[in-house]
Amino acid sequence: MNKYIVEFIGTFFLLLVIGLCVIEPGGAGAMAPLAIGTILMVMVYAGGHISGGHYNPAVTLGVWMRGKCEAKEVPFYMVAQVLGALAASLLVVYLKGDSLIVAANPKIANVFIAELIFTFALVFVVLNVATAKKTTGNSYYGLAIGFTLMTAAYSIGSISGCAINPAVAIGITLMGLSKLSNLWVFLVANFAGGALASMVFKITNSDE
Amino acid sequence: MNKYIVEFIGTFFLLLVIGLCVIEPGGAGAMAPLAIGTILMVMVYAGGHISGGHYNPAVTLGVWMRGKCEAKEVPFYMVAQVLGALAASLLVVYLKGDSLIVAANPKIANVFIAELIFTFALVFVVLNVATAKKTTGNSYYGLAIGFTLMTAAYSIGSISGCAINPAVAIGITLMGLSKLSNLWVFLVANFAGGALASMVFKITNSDE
Amino acid sequence: MNKYIVEFIGTFFLLLVIGLCVIEPGGAGAMAPLAIGTILMVMVYAGGHISGGHYNPAVTLGVWMRGKCEAKEVPFYMVAQVLGALAASLLVVYLKGDSLIVAANPKIANVFIAELIFTFALVFVVLNVATAKKTTGNSYYGLAIGFTLMTAAYSIGSISGCAINPAVAIGITLMGLSKLSNLWVFLVANFAGGALASMVFKITNSDE
Amino acid sequence: MNKYIVEFIGTFFLLLVIGLCVIEPGGAGAMAPLAIGTILMVMVYAGGHISGGHYNPAVTLGVWMRGKCEAKEVPFYMVAQVLGALAASLLVVYLKGDSLIVAANPKIANVFIAELIFTFALVFVVLNVATAKKTTGNSYYGLAIGFTLMTAAYSIGSISGCAINPAVAIGITLMGLSKLSNLWVFLVANFAGGALASMVFKITNSDE
Repeated sequence: MNKYIVEFIGTFFLLLVIGLCVIEPGGAGAMAPLAIGTILMVMVYAGGHISGGHYNPAVTLGVWMRGKCEAKEVPFYMVAQVLGALAASLLVVYLKGDSLIVAANPKIANVFIAELIFTFALVFVVLNVATAKKTTGNSYYGLAIGFTLMTAAYSIGSISGCAINPAVAIGITLMGLSKLSNLWVFLVANFAGGALASMVFKITNSDE
Repeated sequence: MNKYIVEFIGTFFLLLVIGLCVIEPGGAGAMAPLAIGTILMVMVYAGGHISGGHYNPAVTLGVWMRGKCEAKEVPFYMVAQVLGALAASLLVVYLKGDSLIVAANPKIANVFIAELIFTFALVFVVLNVATAKKTTGNSYYGLAIGFTLMTAAYSIGSISGCAINPAVAIGITLMGLSKLSNLWVFLVANFAGGALASMVFKITNSDE
Repeated sequence: MNKYIVEFIGTFFLLLVIGLCVIEPGGAGAMAPLAIGTILMVMVYAGGHISGGHYNPAVTLGVWMRGKCEAKEVPFYMVAQVLGALAASLLVVYLKGDSLIVAANPKIANVFIAELIFTFALVFVVLNVATAKKTTGNSYYGLAIGFTLMTAAYSIGSISGCAINPAVAIGITLMGLSKLSNLWVFLVANFAGGALASMVFKITNSDE
Repeated sequence: MNKYIVEFIGTFFLLLVIGLCVIEPGGAGAMAPLAIGTILMVMVYAGGHISGGHYNPAVTLGVWMRGKCEAKEVPFYMVAQVLGALAASLLVVYLKGDSLIVAANPKIANVFIAELIFTFALVFVVLNVATAKKTTGNSYYGLAIGFTLMTAAYSIGSISGCAINPAVAIGITLMGLSKLSNLWVFLVANFAGGALASMVFKITNSDE
């Protein structure tokens, strides 16, 4: 149960920072990706020893495929993550009540490519820094994971908004930053990216 | 005594950087949260091995509730922190003498919510990265703690000013950045957030 | 084979982030160097335990000269890196299809000096933090390497564009950010900088 | 001899990045402090195991007073640092030849206070993270030291220019960013700040 509470808390703060920093006025402007990558970093460091610090159903999928998360836990992880995202999104809507939020109107093909590739990057980093035998006991895993999100946000923020996380995709849809009709693209691309990363991890870590 | 000197120094530099970076002209503009989170990080790394590197009465409350700080030390920690904040605030007023400082006029309910939630985040991170058995000996604790303040400042700087620290609340009131009539909101929200974090830490670290 | 897949992936993401963040509109503006240094950092942390995380033929040259990479592997490393750079560049051209890209028109002498000196810095850092006996087992190697690229990009981005990596030089030429007629300057300066760093590493680590 | 070569290299790059990032056009604008703090970080990580990574006569003074540097080495450290600063400054003047550089005209009393206090902070951090018994073997020392310079530059860049290092003070004077008639203020304040930090370190680390 501790794991699910931590997954709820971490995903809650991830979406809270996304909403507060991305929505203007009162957001973080060009520094929003730094703030967003950082909240992921600190929540991974804070909760990693309890739940593994996924905060992302695509990460949970990839970690399960890699054999470091039990099948029976997977749905509870994902439910906790989505509930955290929903709770934060409602709070953002309350706190940012005065803002005029306009959903982006992206090119769907580009959204798919961008989300697929950078979810791959995120989950590939997670699996290598947090589950590989040769990197056990390192102190950089949270920095690497959080800052992968940061660099992704600077790279594809203007293409897809950079969810690279199904719970984030649901949250930003609820906040009005992304259209409901585009949600499926994120979900498919993010889970596919996570699964692909897990496969490539297994190939390139063939000694495990 | 060494502990209280270090708590004084760390909180002094925290408030000094806040004042110098937030007050314009001559401040750090959009980079102020980075500078502020960083001074907390470096002071935690510099003083952590002596005093634990709290620099925040809400952290001291949370650490005491978690059983990692003796009751008799708590008032001395808090006095040292407030004295450091006061000293730095006076120096800021001297160095920034030419600036026109206007106190923010925030929505009190939102200040309370923002300060409560992000003080919770800060103290939750502190307890997990700096006092949990499973994270003992790590090298990331200062990065995680300092950068939680950074991401909080980008997220709620426009809502509450982001004190998430009673000593900071007192210091920014003295500098004129926040109204004396609002000080109680910060104090209540910050101590409540710290206490709540300590309770959630105990629940989610039930094996300790 | 695992090594070359990882070198391909890492260099692919390095060039992908460079293209997406540097080319406007939709780039990362003043934060591009942070995003670029960070993708190198996270890919070094993700792939370091498999391939060493070079992602740069000048690094491979320096590591080989220092005796930490076998001669027979060197050409495969470099081919994998260049292929990764080419693949990413094509994807950038597709995703940024609407952008008007204008190649810089730099002073060749200054390009040579800037690229030589900062490739030296990058490879000198790599050799000391990732191959020296006295720094074995540290958790900062990725941060040091990635952020050397970041600080280089802030320093000489306006002089040479800051490739400090032959694979990057080829990629930015393909994207149209640099002129084909200038490519040789990058290649000579980058390999020379890497070789020089390896020599200075040996002199200053005379106990190895 | 290896130590002095490394001190030359590290201080050379520190001044090179300062000049290239601070002098406009072609500088790093608001990101200059990040770039400057980062070059110190990476050079500390690269050279720390050889020379200790001082790159600053005030640090050398403080480390010598704390008993971690031999008296006979001190002048060679300082000469190597100043030579590195001079070499970089000449290169900056060459590369930035087209720039109109105007020396700042600061209030001397404020320069003295700012330089004294933040040199104290830098040397206090250095002594605690890189020479204290209780922090031996950590991976954060370079991050803490480099980013202390970064936060100092955001805080007092507009007051003193933020040298907090006699070699930097000499270099920025040579580049024309600071007046020769003000050099003594930096030298006195920086050495005094370093000495003060060493004294406070000894008081607060009374168990060593």
